[in-house]
Amino acid sequence: MSSVAELFLSIFCGFAICCLLLGIASSSSSSGGRFLPMKPSSSSAAAAVTGAQEEESAAAVQQNGGGRQGLIAPDGGALLDLHVAAKDKDAKTAEASTLPQIHISKVDMEWVHVLADGWASPLRGFMRQHEYLQTLHFNCLRLNDGSFVNMSIPIVLSITDEQKEVIGAASAVTLVAPTGTPLAILRNIEIYAHNREERIARTWGTTAPELPYVQEALANSGTWLVGGDLEVLERIKYNDGLDNYRLSPAELRAEFERREADAVFAFQLRNPVHNGHALLMTDTRRRLLEMGYKNPILLLHPLGGFTKPDDVPLEWRMKQHEKVLEEGVLDPQTTVVAIFPSPMHYAGPTEVQWHAKARINAGANFYIVGRDPAGMGHPTEKRDLYDPEHGKLVLSMAPGLERLNILPFRVAAYDKTKSSMAFFEPSRAQDFMFISGTKMRNFAKEGVKPPDGFMCPGGWQVLVDYYRQLQENELQTV
Amino acid sequence: MSSVAELFLSIFCGFAICCLLLGIASSSSSSGGRFLPMKPSSSSAAAAVTGAQEEESAAAVQQNGGGRQGLIAPDGGALLDLHVAAKDKDAKTAEASTLPQIHISKVDMEWVHVLADGWASPLRGFMRQHEYLQTLHFNCLRLNDGSFVNMSIPIVLSITDEQKEVIGAASAVTLVAPTGTPLAILRNIEIYAHNREERIARTWGTTAPELPYVQEALANSGTWLVGGDLEVLERIKYNDGLDNYRLSPAELRAEFERREADAVFAFQLRNPVHNGHALLMTDTRRRLLEMGYKNPILLLHPLGGFTKPDDVPLEWRMKQHEKVLEEGVLDPQTTVVAIFPSPMHYAGPTEVQWHAKARINAGANFYIVGRDPAGMGHPTEKRDLYDPEHGKLVLSMAPGLERLNILPFRVAAYDKTKSSMAFFEPSRAQDFMFISGTKMRNFAKEGVKPPDGFMCPGGWQVLVDYYRQLQENELQTV
Repeated sequence: MSSVAELFLSIFCGFAICCLLLGIASSSSSSGGRFLPMKPSSSSAAAAVTGAQEEESAAAVQQNGGGRQGLIAPDGGALLDLHVAAKDKDAKTAEASTLPQIHISKVDMEWVHVLADGWASPLRGFMRQHEYLQTLHFNCLRLNDGSFVNMSIPIVLSITDEQKEVIGAASAVTLVAPTGTPLAILRNIEIYAHNREERIARTWGTTAPELPYVQEALANSGTWLVGGDLEVLERIKYNDGLDNYRLSPAELRAEFERREADAVFAFQLRNPVHNGHALLMTDTRRRLLEMGYKNPILLLHPLGGFTKPDDVPLEWRMKQHEKVLEEGVLDPQTTVVAIFPSPMHYAGPTEVQWHAKARINAGANFYIVGRDPAGMGHPTEKRDLYDPEHGKLVLSMAPGLERLNILPFRVAAYDKTKSSMAFFEPSRAQDFMFISGTKMRNFAKEGVKPPDGFMCPGGWQVLVDYYRQLQENELQTV
Repeated sequence: MSSVAELFLSIFCGFAICCLLLGIASSSSSSGGRFLPMKPSSSSAAAAVTGAQEEESAAAVQQNGGGRQGLIAPDGGALLDLHVAAKDKDAKTAEASTLPQIHISKVDMEWVHVLADGWASPLRGFMRQHEYLQTLHFNCLRLNDGSFVNMSIPIVLSITDEQKEVIGAASAVTLVAPTGTPLAILRNIEIYAHNREERIARTWGTTAPELPYVQEALANSGTWLVGGDLEVLERIKYNDGLDNYRLSPAELRAEFERREADAVFAFQLRNPVHNGHALLMTDTRRRLLEMGYKNPILLLHPLGGFTKPDDVPLEWRMKQHEKVLEEGVLDPQTTVVAIFPSPMHYAGPTEVQWHAKARINAGANFYIVGRDPAGMGHPTEKRDLYDPEHGKLVLSMAPGLERLNILPFRVAAYDKTKSSMAFFEPSRAQDFMFISGTKMRNFAKEGVKPPDGFMCPGGWQVLVDYYRQLQENELQTV
């Protein structure tokens, strides 16, 4: 193995967050852990456990995702859809034009999308104070029947003093997209103080500067939050050629039904898929079959909202994922690729709960978790921001996620003896090469071909193209 | 009313954290709140709800606090006592002398006391990582039966690299008091990383400098935490003349039984008691009698561990509390005064949960909460560190505290028309004087007599004496 290959492998540390492989039984958890996958029979039983939400509501509700018995029930028992009904659209649009207007940011709009589709069910809109406080302190919300659903990330809308003044005593406001289009009515609003320092400290476990989401969405945010019930006027489109991938939880459930899935395993990612990931996913399916499931379906679910500037942009990741399926690395028959519209917090153990909880609402009853999920380097210190083991530990103990089967996975690396990605075996450590990879960008810019078996050639070419055009753009800028 | 009286009243802002009065039904909570006091019948029912802890253990366990049906069951179903049995003491003491020794601080020793007495039941010692993570992220611990107990404050023991090296591969260590006395064995230990930044951010909701507990206990703490099962060699004594007030939860339960209490309402404080507090406490008892309880007992429960330097020290507070009972402001027949040995975090909504949870273990089924419990000013900004309303909101929604009746109370102030403390009535705001009180120290130093009805004369004299000797000491130091 040449030093070129070694260099190549070092590239992928940027992607190494997911560069790990499945080991269902393996776990570094203490007694608090909960990594026992359920048998198929428990899966449908779990759906019955969820009590129906007692609260009556005007929002459109689709019982159990229109669902077949086999899929896990959504949080709160019913999947919410916060779009206005077609018959009401004209009247609501007319009403929206009469209400105080709040212009929202791109990230806020991504949250409107998340809420509208029911990813955060049973949340009916931006959080009111009692929800916000439960999220900050307990990472879960208590329902009327006393049970908990997980909710670890504050989904809140900030407003400025000036915007608060515009709202005055109104009980409803219209949310307006950055393009100027009225998006939604927020009704029965509650305005409360936005203590950014406390929100950041409790969500990220640090107040270090340069947290990407904080810079993007909080640094210039208002000192108030406004919560309420959302009525979204129409489905949010991005017109980037990828809208057909933005399936709602209800649409995903329908697709899983159509495929007669009896298990759905979700893989959250915000990075290109290499053969280590692919091995993990195919191995998971093999294990689920061994457990007695007849048709486990993979939800390959890249995150589509805000990501930090040095992540690979969504459009390039989607091109890369397409190649992975085209070239047969993953089986299109048993894989659904869709975009998860949430913005990224990079809040580690806190955020991984949100990533898992949202996928329950889309019908996933298995969730794959690796090293340092939703983590990143500390902004000011030379260390990971989060202990890389905490994510899966916290996920395994999180209130409201009891019904979800957590699948932790072992580290994978390039096995030099097999010229492929494989589970790392400490007993023959010398055969493996770990991907240490801040060098990745430099390497990709040089267009060096990766060692065989690391990534499908078409997928790799997408990355080479991405870094080439990035470099060209940078040169043009200079 | 003279400006002297006004000045006097302004004094008490230092004490104003508790300068509030009961209003059971009143609440600014939204739908998430839970402020409905139970009827007496529910009280014993609540005790039955708690499932027995399935876990077997060598630690001494006193079922239901040796308890009468009427008292609320302790968290986890059984009250722990982590002191070694008398018959084992010699053997354990001998063993302790053979183990690696960890010298602990005064605050650490206060936590050993808290754990040993069972205030933190069902915790069996300093937290292991899975408990620590649940506390940081969820403010509660999941028991084996799937139920939750509240646990909002990390009870952890930090060690340095050097201490970790001394421990080596040992599975048990001896904890040694600052005086050099071996205190306890910590067994089946687990050592894990101590990320102070994350602990502070998630516990306090800020990483601002000069948080009192952080300065006292964390600033120079080690980079590791060690958890395990505690075996405490003998009861911890302070030899300050107050040890007879340091009743354990089991002793308090026995006292409540002896008095045939059918309700116990706890009042946590770290400040002198004025007549506003007293009115609150007597009014609570009146309301509980109205609700049908025959013999509600007040647990007046000053905090006895670490407090910040500008709080009134424990010995002076205890002198003051004695006067309040001697002079009949509170009725000794229906009041138990005891010291809660916990150190103070000043962590607001996070800490108030700990204050409430610990009192469940002592048999209290009602907990009185005011404005900004466990709060303080922001160390670097001109504002309260916490929203003063958040404490009672968070407490009312906290997982694991469902069995506890939360009694929020209304603001009290000095009613000039009655020359006494009374519920503040916004409709005649001009009749009341609020206690704004950083001026308190200056005033008390001048020895000005308070207006009639503000505090019993003997209690006030204690404070005058305290500030006089403080001033004298300061002069001597200069």
